[in-house]
Amino acid sequence: MSTATQASDPSFETKHVHAAILSTGDEVVLGQIADTNARWIAQKLMDRGIVPVQHAAVPDELEVIVEAIERLARSTDLLIMTGGLGPTDGDLTRHALAKVLKDDLVVDEGALGDLRALMARRGREMSERQARQAQRPRSAACLPNSVGTAPGLFARVRRADGRVCEVVCLPGPPGELRDMWAKQVENRLKPRAGFIVRTRLLHVVAMPEAEVSGLLKDLTARERVEGKALVGMTASGGVITVRIRVEGELSESQARAALDAADAGVRAKLGKHVVCEGDGRGIDLVARAMIEKLAQRGESFGCVESCTGGGLGALLTSIPGSSRAFTGGLITYSNELKSRLAGVDAGLIARHGAVSADVARAMALGGLRALGTTHCGAITGIAGPDGGSAEKPVGTVFLALASRSGGNGVERVDVRRLLITGDREDIRQRAGVGLLAMLHFAVEGFEVGVPRLIWETSDRKESPRIA
Amino acid sequence: MSTATQASDPSFETKHVHAAILSTGDEVVLGQIADTNARWIAQKLMDRGIVPVQHAAVPDELEVIVEAIERLARSTDLLIMTGGLGPTDGDLTRHALAKVLKDDLVVDEGALGDLRALMARRGREMSERQARQAQRPRSAACLPNSVGTAPGLFARVRRADGRVCEVVCLPGPPGELRDMWAKQVENRLKPRAGFIVRTRLLHVVAMPEAEVSGLLKDLTARERVEGKALVGMTASGGVITVRIRVEGELSESQARAALDAADAGVRAKLGKHVVCEGDGRGIDLVARAMIEKLAQRGESFGCVESCTGGGLGALLTSIPGSSRAFTGGLITYSNELKSRLAGVDAGLIARHGAVSADVARAMALGGLRALGTTHCGAITGIAGPDGGSAEKPVGTVFLALASRSGGNGVERVDVRRLLITGDREDIRQRAGVGLLAMLHFAVEGFEVGVPRLIWETSDRKESPRIA
Repeated sequence: MSTATQASDPSFETKHVHAAILSTGDEVVLGQIADTNARWIAQKLMDRGIVPVQHAAVPDELEVIVEAIERLARSTDLLIMTGGLGPTDGDLTRHALAKVLKDDLVVDEGALGDLRALMARRGREMSERQARQAQRPRSAACLPNSVGTAPGLFARVRRADGRVCEVVCLPGPPGELRDMWAKQVENRLKPRAGFIVRTRLLHVVAMPEAEVSGLLKDLTARERVEGKALVGMTASGGVITVRIRVEGELSESQARAALDAADAGVRAKLGKHVVCEGDGRGIDLVARAMIEKLAQRGESFGCVESCTGGGLGALLTSIPGSSRAFTGGLITYSNELKSRLAGVDAGLIARHGAVSADVARAMALGGLRALGTTHCGAITGIAGPDGGSAEKPVGTVFLALASRSGGNGVERVDVRRLLITGDREDIRQRAGVGLLAMLHFAVEGFEVGVPRLIWETSDRKESPRIA
Repeated sequence: MSTATQASDPSFETKHVHAAILSTGDEVVLGQIADTNARWIAQKLMDRGIVPVQHAAVPDELEVIVEAIERLARSTDLLIMTGGLGPTDGDLTRHALAKVLKDDLVVDEGALGDLRALMARRGREMSERQARQAQRPRSAACLPNSVGTAPGLFARVRRADGRVCEVVCLPGPPGELRDMWAKQVENRLKPRAGFIVRTRLLHVVAMPEAEVSGLLKDLTARERVEGKALVGMTASGGVITVRIRVEGELSESQARAALDAADAGVRAKLGKHVVCEGDGRGIDLVARAMIEKLAQRGESFGCVESCTGGGLGALLTSIPGSSRAFTGGLITYSNELKSRLAGVDAGLIARHGAVSADVARAMALGGLRALGTTHCGAITGIAGPDGGSAEKPVGTVFLALASRSGGNGVERVDVRRLLITGDREDIRQRAGVGLLAMLHFAVEGFEVGVPRLIWETSDRKESPRIA
C-alpha cells in the first residue's frame, strides 16, 4: 500500500437526474436492524429534485458488494452507499469500491490527520485498526466526518456507455450519515436544470386521521397537474402530517404559489388543529413549536409524568434551546413518588386509583407548586401490555394541564381522558403529544371544551373546568 | 385473455436455502413510507433457517420489476415480493411476473369467487377494476387473502442453470402481508433438510467499537466454516451488539454448541462488559437487563436528569414491568430546579458550572434523598449543538451514581466524565447508556476504577472514589 501524494477533488460533475441507494451490512439484510437510512436519503434526494430509482441492501461480502455497485452504477448518475466504512474486518465498502475502480488502497494523509486529531482529543492512542479508516481507493476522495471516526468516500465510476456514475459512501450510523450529508454532499449535488420539487409539511394534532382525510378529500385527488400541488398525509405518534408537494419545470415563485394555495386550502379545513409547518418528524416539530411559542410569551412549562416515565421531558429537551421554556419535571412512576414529589394525597390514590382524573389533576397542581412554572402538565395512564381492566382498559390515559397567569394564583386546570389504541410505545408517545395539544389550545386561548377537541374519547363527568 | 380450467398447485418444491426480498412501489423508493415489510420478512426467514441474501426496492415500472425478478431469481431459491397486487394502474406485479414466466394473464375462478363474496359481505358492487385482482399468470397460483381484497401469487421461475426459484408475491399492507404469510407461506417453506440458522446477540457496554473489534479479531474472520459460528458486531447508541450466527446442516445441539463456543470466546475477551443477550435493540436489552437485575436483588433505581431531560427514565419505563425496580426521577433541566428539587447548592453551580463533577455528585446524592431509592444516577452535560467551550466541549457529560446499602447511610458515589462525539441525540442516548453501564458495574461489584472502564475519556482528578 502506497501513500497518495494528493487527494482527488470531490467535486461532482455529473448532472444528477436518477440515483440509486445501496445499503451494506449483514444486520440490515438479516433483518436485525431497520434500514432507516435508505428512506432518509430518498427523501433528501427528492427534496433536491433527484429521483431515486432503486434501493438495494447487500450483506458484508466483498463480491456481492462489488456486483451491486457495478450493476447500480450502470443505470444511474449517482449512487449513494451507506455502511461498511468502520474499522472492523466486516467493513468492506472501501475494498469493494477499489475493486470496481480497479484501484489499490492508499492512505489519505488528510483523513489520517483528522483521525489522529480526533483520537488525541479523546485522549486515546490510534490503533492500526483505527488507521485503516483513512484508506481510500487511489482515485477516490475522502469526505470528512465531523461526528465520528470513519470518513466517507467519493469516486467516479466510468460506465461502459462512457458516462460517469458518481458514488458517495456514507457511514452507517444515522447521526454521522446525516451530518456528512449536510456538510459534504447536499451542496455538491447537481440536479437537472429547471426541474424542481418543493414540499411543505403541515403538522396537525388532536384530530383522528380519518377525520383529517375526510375534511381534505377534495384536495387529495391523485391526478398530477403540472403546477398544481399534490396533497397527502401520514399519521405518526398522534400527529397527522399533511404533505404538500409540487414538481415540474417551474420557477420558484410558481412553486411557492402552488404550495401557498394548497396550504391555504388545508388550513381553511383544519383551523387551529394545524400547529406548525416544517420538514421533519411531526412530533418533533410540534414540540419545537410549543417551545417557541412559550419562549415568545415568556412562559415556562414543566411536567409530572407517570406512564410516560420522562418521555415528554425527553421529547421537549431534544429541541436545542428548549431551556428557554422547559425547566424540568418530576417522574412519579411509583405511587409513593406521586405523593412524595408532587404532594398527591395518598388517600386520593387509594380512592380513585393512580390512573384517574382526580390524581391527574392533583399531579398537575402539585407539579405547578413544586416546579414553579407557568404551566404544568401531568400524565397518568395504563401503557400496557398488562394492568388494564374493563373500566380502565390498556390505553386509558388522563392528561391534566394546570396554568397560572399573573401572581401565583392558580387560574385553571383542565383534565382530559384519552383512550389510545396501539402498543406500549404508541400509547406513551400519543399521551405526550396529547398533552402538547392541550398546551397548544390553552396558549392559543382556544376553547377546549368543545367535543371535536377531545381527540379520542372524553368522560365529561370527570373533566370539569376549574376556574 | 382466457380462463384457466384449473389453478396450479401452490406447493413449494424447491429446497429453500437462500432468499431475496423485493419490494415494489414508488412510495417506498421515493422515501414516502418506511419499508417495514422487508425487515419483517427477513426475520421470519431467519427464524426458519433460510438466509436472506439481498433486498431490493423498485418503483412501479413494468420493465424495472421484470429485470429485478429475473436478476434475483438467478441467484436464489426463493424470492419474496411485496406490493403491486392491488386494483390500480400502478399495480404491476402480476404483469411483471407473467412477462418473466412468458405467460398470459388468466382469470382465477377461485380468486374471483372469493372477491365476489368479499364485496358482497361489504355490501358493494364489484367493479371491473376490482376484478383485475383475480388475474394471475397462467402457470401461477393465487394465494387467498383473508384480510383484504388482493390475492397473493405463487410461481416457479425456471432458471438458466435448470434450477427453479420459487416466487411468492404478497400484498403491501403489513396486516394483509403478515396474515397471508402465516396462513399461506410459512408452512410451505422447505428449508434445506437439516439446514438451520441460529443466532445469538450479546450486548456490550462501556467499550469503544474499535476496541471490541480488536479484542474479537480472531473470532470475526469472515471465512465460513460449516459448523463454526460467524461473529460480527454493530454499534448503536453506546451499545455494541455482538452477533453470533451459525448455519449449516447441523443438529440443534451442534448449533447450540457452536453458539456456546463462540459465546464463551466473546465473553472471555470482553468479560463483564457483556451485559446481556437477546434479540432486539441493544439499548433496550441493556435497560431490560438492569431492571431485571435490580428487581431480583430487591433494589430500586431513580435518576436526576439534566441534559437527557427524562430520556433515561423514558428508556427504563419503556420496559413493561419496570416499576419493579424504577420508581421515578427528577428532571432538573434548569439550574434553579437542580437546587429546588435535588438540593444542589447554588454556590456549587456558580463555582463549578452546572456541567461538572461536583454538581453531578450533588445531584446524585440529592436525588438519593429525594427519591429514597437504593441507587440514584445523575446526568449533566452539554448535548449541543451550542453551549460548548474549549474546556468543556459539546459532548462533555458527567455521570454520577450514588448507592446505599443497608440502613440509610450513603455508601458511595462514583463520578465519571465522558466526552461523547455525535449529534445531540447521540450524546443524550449514550449518556443514558453510560449511566446504565455504571449501574451494571456497581451492581456486579466490579471495580470501576480501572482505566478500561472509563469508556470515553476520564478526568481522574475529578473522579475520586468516595467511601
